[in-house]
Amino acid sequence: MTMLAHANSGRPEQPAFERRLRDELHRRWPAGADELDALARYALLPPGKLLRPLLALACAEAVGGAPDDVVPAALAVEYLHVATLVHDDIIDADDVRRSRPAVHAAHGVPDAIVAGDHLIFAAFTAIGECRPARAATAAATALAAAGSDLCRGQVLEARLAGNPAAGVEAYLTVAALKTGALFRAACRIGALLGGADAERADRLGEYGELLGIAFQIRDDVLACTLGPEATGKPSTSDLANGRPTLPVLLAFEAADPATRRALAAALARRSAGPGELAEFRAMLVATGGVDRARARATEYGEQALARLDTLEASASRDLLASAAAWATGAGR
Amino acid sequence: MTMLAHANSGRPEQPAFERRLRDELHRRWPAGADELDALARYALLPPGKLLRPLLALACAEAVGGAPDDVVPAALAVEYLHVATLVHDDIIDADDVRRSRPAVHAAHGVPDAIVAGDHLIFAAFTAIGECRPARAATAAATALAAAGSDLCRGQVLEARLAGNPAAGVEAYLTVAALKTGALFRAACRIGALLGGADAERADRLGEYGELLGIAFQIRDDVLACTLGPEATGKPSTSDLANGRPTLPVLLAFEAADPATRRALAAALARRSAGPGELAEFRAMLVATGGVDRARARATEYGEQALARLDTLEASASRDLLASAAAWATGAGR
Repeated sequence: MTMLAHANSGRPEQPAFERRLRDELHRRWPAGADELDALARYALLPPGKLLRPLLALACAEAVGGAPDDVVPAALAVEYLHVATLVHDDIIDADDVRRSRPAVHAAHGVPDAIVAGDHLIFAAFTAIGECRPARAATAAATALAAAGSDLCRGQVLEARLAGNPAAGVEAYLTVAALKTGALFRAACRIGALLGGADAERADRLGEYGELLGIAFQIRDDVLACTLGPEATGKPSTSDLANGRPTLPVLLAFEAADPATRRALAAALARRSAGPGELAEFRAMLVATGGVDRARARATEYGEQALARLDTLEASASRDLLASAAAWATGAGR
Repeated sequence: MTMLAHANSGRPEQPAFERRLRDELHRRWPAGADELDALARYALLPPGKLLRPLLALACAEAVGGAPDDVVPAALAVEYLHVATLVHDDIIDADDVRRSRPAVHAAHGVPDAIVAGDHLIFAAFTAIGECRPARAATAAATALAAAGSDLCRGQVLEARLAGNPAAGVEAYLTVAALKTGALFRAACRIGALLGGADAERADRLGEYGELLGIAFQIRDDVLACTLGPEATGKPSTSDLANGRPTLPVLLAFEAADPATRRALAAALARRSAGPGELAEFRAMLVATGGVDRARARATEYGEQALARLDTLEASASRDLLASAAAWATGAGR
């Protein structure tokens, strides 16, 4: 029985923060704007779970800051996140996102490239609204570093495609870069603009990175077990991209030679009919790959939770703790 | 005889600034780095004319600042410029840039998308090194606004493709967004970090925008008159993209109905053999489109020059003046 098994594993919610973020997104990206802003609006609205900006606001409040002052920076994190989704969907030829056509599928690749760029610039415009200037500069630098880490993770992930023997370490490096980095930045930015000293901001940044890795594992497990109605993406997306996710890598480690060959062939094929997908998923379950991936998510979630130990009790601390519990509760 | 006809129309040079920028580019983007940095290095080195970062350093010095302190921000402007070249070359399917394969031609579209994103993030990382924080925040905000303007210009330009009747006003709007905005930002950023007050920074920003428009017209004129060895791009690039450049728009305005039909057909074809290109260029010259475009560049250059009137005499002021003269000397 793990520490987190006792915790609430429902999706972390903070209705006041969410409402504030949604209202602000609608206010800043109104209908009827020019074509470029309309492309950004299509990508941003309706919003997803807003998990990253919620973390930024919660971290600001958890260190004694005023969440309202941090809203522009929280939105900046969401803009950057959505920008990378828009560009990644082009790269991965994923035509469906959040149960709708991806930006490039709806508007073409050229406009999708430009829309992603615009969202990156909008992120730095928004973060520049925050004060004091010293904290805003530190926050912008943290966001820029996370952005480059995301790019680094994208390049590295592409090099692993099709290789079920890539190894767990390589996966974790990609997860830290592609997901952990922006979760880390969200938490550090919230803490810095909330008035935290460097040590406290760093500790919340570590919480964010560990949470992000747990969250990425959770996402990869759900992609192996749920249908498209739950994930908003085609069930075949990871397989079509030959992506060796953690369940695949752990299944491969544990598998007999015949199953290894079958896993490698499935990844190499870069396409999957419904029967092939079901067979592939069954191998991930039968080898224990899915269960062992879940256990890894729990480990990361517990490590994240431990980083909250110096925070005083508050509703925002509870939100951060419930996020750690949620990220580890994949499919249970 | 215009004011600028007396001025030196050779390329503006400041060997000490150029050496400093080149050395710093090589220092920051060494060979043997990881794959992502290697992609950025491919895009950045060997560098182009470095006109935008030179303007930033010259503006910093012209207002009494220390150019050395502004080098990271000057590089940031170059990173953003190169990022947009990388992404625009994907969008325009331009496979040659600076007489070499464009990033996407050498490394594929996915890596080129990511390399461009990384360069944008690197720009904000670099500008965050500058101090004081208040000026750095203002500079980052100016850079982000310019980035979004570039995106807006890209979208608008795409809508004009193939239309020789798009009109001069639409062209000038695109030129202000796609080229003027980043020249403006380069000059404002240099001035702000050089210690200028808001009024002086704005005036140098106006200089930059006017210079950028003159420079864009110059570029479009050269693309109509020179070969690929001079421009580093195939001579057919504008025509293959159906781009109604200023010489085309002015030629169309002045042309008889038969020539108008021929111009429209050439833009609509989206491809050109050597004979068709020569015929197209001959129409631009015969209708006076090229000469009238040159005259427009001179007007913008003179307006830019007038914005320098409150600067004290200095080598950097001379550099800014010679840039205005250079931008207007297309092909003469």
